[in-house]
Amino acid sequence: MNASVRVTILTDFGTVDGYVGAMKGVVANAAPGSAVEDVAHDIPRGDVTAAMWALHRYWDLYPEGSVHLAVVDPGVGTSRKGLALSADGRFVVAPDNGIVSLVIRDAQRWRAVELARIDPPVETGSRTFHGRDLFAPAAGLLARDGDLDALGPTLEEPVEIPVPEPRRTDRGWAGEVVRVDRFGNLVTNLPGAWAGEDARLEVGERSLAFLPAYGHAEPGATLALVNSDGLVEVAVRGDTAAGVLGADAGTPVRLILEGG
Amino acid sequence: MNASVRVTILTDFGTVDGYVGAMKGVVANAAPGSAVEDVAHDIPRGDVTAAMWALHRYWDLYPEGSVHLAVVDPGVGTSRKGLALSADGRFVVAPDNGIVSLVIRDAQRWRAVELARIDPPVETGSRTFHGRDLFAPAAGLLARDGDLDALGPTLEEPVEIPVPEPRRTDRGWAGEVVRVDRFGNLVTNLPGAWAGEDARLEVGERSLAFLPAYGHAEPGATLALVNSDGLVEVAVRGDTAAGVLGADAGTPVRLILEGG
Amino acid sequence: MNASVRVTILTDFGTVDGYVGAMKGVVANAAPGSAVEDVAHDIPRGDVTAAMWALHRYWDLYPEGSVHLAVVDPGVGTSRKGLALSADGRFVVAPDNGIVSLVIRDAQRWRAVELARIDPPVETGSRTFHGRDLFAPAAGLLARDGDLDALGPTLEEPVEIPVPEPRRTDRGWAGEVVRVDRFGNLVTNLPGAWAGEDARLEVGERSLAFLPAYGHAEPGATLALVNSDGLVEVAVRGDTAAGVLGADAGTPVRLILEGG
Repeated sequence: MNASVRVTILTDFGTVDGYVGAMKGVVANAAPGSAVEDVAHDIPRGDVTAAMWALHRYWDLYPEGSVHLAVVDPGVGTSRKGLALSADGRFVVAPDNGIVSLVIRDAQRWRAVELARIDPPVETGSRTFHGRDLFAPAAGLLARDGDLDALGPTLEEPVEIPVPEPRRTDRGWAGEVVRVDRFGNLVTNLPGAWAGEDARLEVGERSLAFLPAYGHAEPGATLALVNSDGLVEVAVRGDTAAGVLGADAGTPVRLILEGG
Repeated sequence: MNASVRVTILTDFGTVDGYVGAMKGVVANAAPGSAVEDVAHDIPRGDVTAAMWALHRYWDLYPEGSVHLAVVDPGVGTSRKGLALSADGRFVVAPDNGIVSLVIRDAQRWRAVELARIDPPVETGSRTFHGRDLFAPAAGLLARDGDLDALGPTLEEPVEIPVPEPRRTDRGWAGEVVRVDRFGNLVTNLPGAWAGEDARLEVGERSLAFLPAYGHAEPGATLALVNSDGLVEVAVRGDTAAGVLGADAGTPVRLILEGG
Repeated sequence: MNASVRVTILTDFGTVDGYVGAMKGVVANAAPGSAVEDVAHDIPRGDVTAAMWALHRYWDLYPEGSVHLAVVDPGVGTSRKGLALSADGRFVVAPDNGIVSLVIRDAQRWRAVELARIDPPVETGSRTFHGRDLFAPAAGLLARDGDLDALGPTLEEPVEIPVPEPRRTDRGWAGEVVRVDRFGNLVTNLPGAWAGEDARLEVGERSLAFLPAYGHAEPGATLALVNSDGLVEVAVRGDTAAGVLGADAGTPVRLILEGG
């Protein structure tokens, strides 16, 4: 029993009901010495891709042994599986719907099991709230014992959400917006390391200079920058780039490396 | 002193101010070893009934000894009392306005006291923020000592919010929507156990089949199901049932058990 | 190592991304025994003044040794400094943009240092997310060691946001709205202690009586009261005063002490 194990929770349940409280109560019962921390409960409803990107931001910043519970689960009650993942010493518990795709991509080593050995208790059994009845118990067991194999058999191929790869072009790279964050900033799939000294970023008709940070732009100006995940991002100072540029996930961007 | 006591907080204060922080600071001072966990701060302003339903979802899932602070308090500063409740080994601290009605209904045993022995400290004394000045101190004392009687004299009859009971009909049961959750799902007062194999649910002109879970419906389809509280619920896959059906708390529903 | 040190977090990051999780993970790594508590993540984007008022509500209610992380940082990536503050035994870590102005005003004793000795780790180095790369590490170090001077040299004059002072008038005091809270209540800069028995408050054409609390007003009525910070406040029962009165920060109010 490790008294300092942290269990984080990410959901799309919002904070207007008692759903999140139910999950936390179950974790507390299973792992009395654990510390439960919220990450986000306002993931857009059912948006597994948004959850995937959010999880990507913090899973490996927590100490080894931490347990990340990530429940955005539009397929609850269908045949989709539940999984637990060990990745570089941390655990993730989630529906097997692709939420963990970027964890798997980026981890040095990982191993997944299917949550086959947890039976929802009869008195609260439900096919609609696996957050409470399947995932929270699994997270509690991991926080208490750290024993992945106790939860079920190996899951060889977790569902993966494809993340688009940039393509080489004559003038640089063709990428796309892969996510809009809550500030309306446009996160692309272009690694910031590829943007050299004189690089520019084209979005539609616009050709944007790279600035070091939001605060370097004039109010209202559109800028390109390398964001805190090391990815090329488009922002509008004091406004939302998604709104100003009419852009969304999938919008093409072009990284121009010379003479563009 | 029990270092692992959890104190949960449910309010309608939102998370754009420091109100919640003030409550947590007071709990931390009174019970330094406690762990404070948020449940929800976006209960609709002053909606005691919504808070009652939310509390119902988690109060007994936490370990014994846990303290649930539930402050939705439109009557703050009037003559409404504050209460502390012991119910099946957990504690609840709340205004005496009905928030605890379902805890009282469902607990095997309960006992309430009036918060008569806590005087808001002079320097922060206020008649408008009992969350900080009355309820948080009481929760802190319970987390530290677990001594209900230290807080005040027995309160024989806490205020109760009536929960409508279903009525028997020729064809089954007449119930009603008692709550709309954040997904727009319509929770009724009909126990799911009453819905047998061929049951259907009528809402206005619609006659709905029961499906095991949201994911079993076609996108956009309306379905009836037994929800995670064991109650009959109406949902629209990928949309809000409240919006699609124009329904709200009080909307009648009919459970049709045969030949309907 | 003090296992019960609490680290609070206040940001404008919202809870739809993993930003807050990233900060918490960094704190957990630096101070494994600390307990992290959210205060608010829905501060309006970039609104340093709102953050200042929120922080004011709770910083000194927490036990000594607590660490308050407050990151609303529109100037991230520019030359604005980061600071850590010791104030009456608590710590605050924040950008040097005025967030701590009211802490400094109200503390018996305080001392600030510039965060000059923390280098963002190379692999996550970013000029856009000092919450994770500068402020969270500093908060973690304070939670672990409580050593302010380890973080950098003394900062003599932190940036201060001016808070308007009331002016004496023939009939009482001229003040102004300094903040609108999430309920739309109008918080003024007039100390409630100045409002005697027969005081009234003028806002535009209206002359308002003081009532003890919201619940004493008729539904829809506008009232003046002394709020939980000890300041004169304007509220509309069951509605938002900001909307009903068309008022905002800066709107003048007049405290009428006699015969007005």
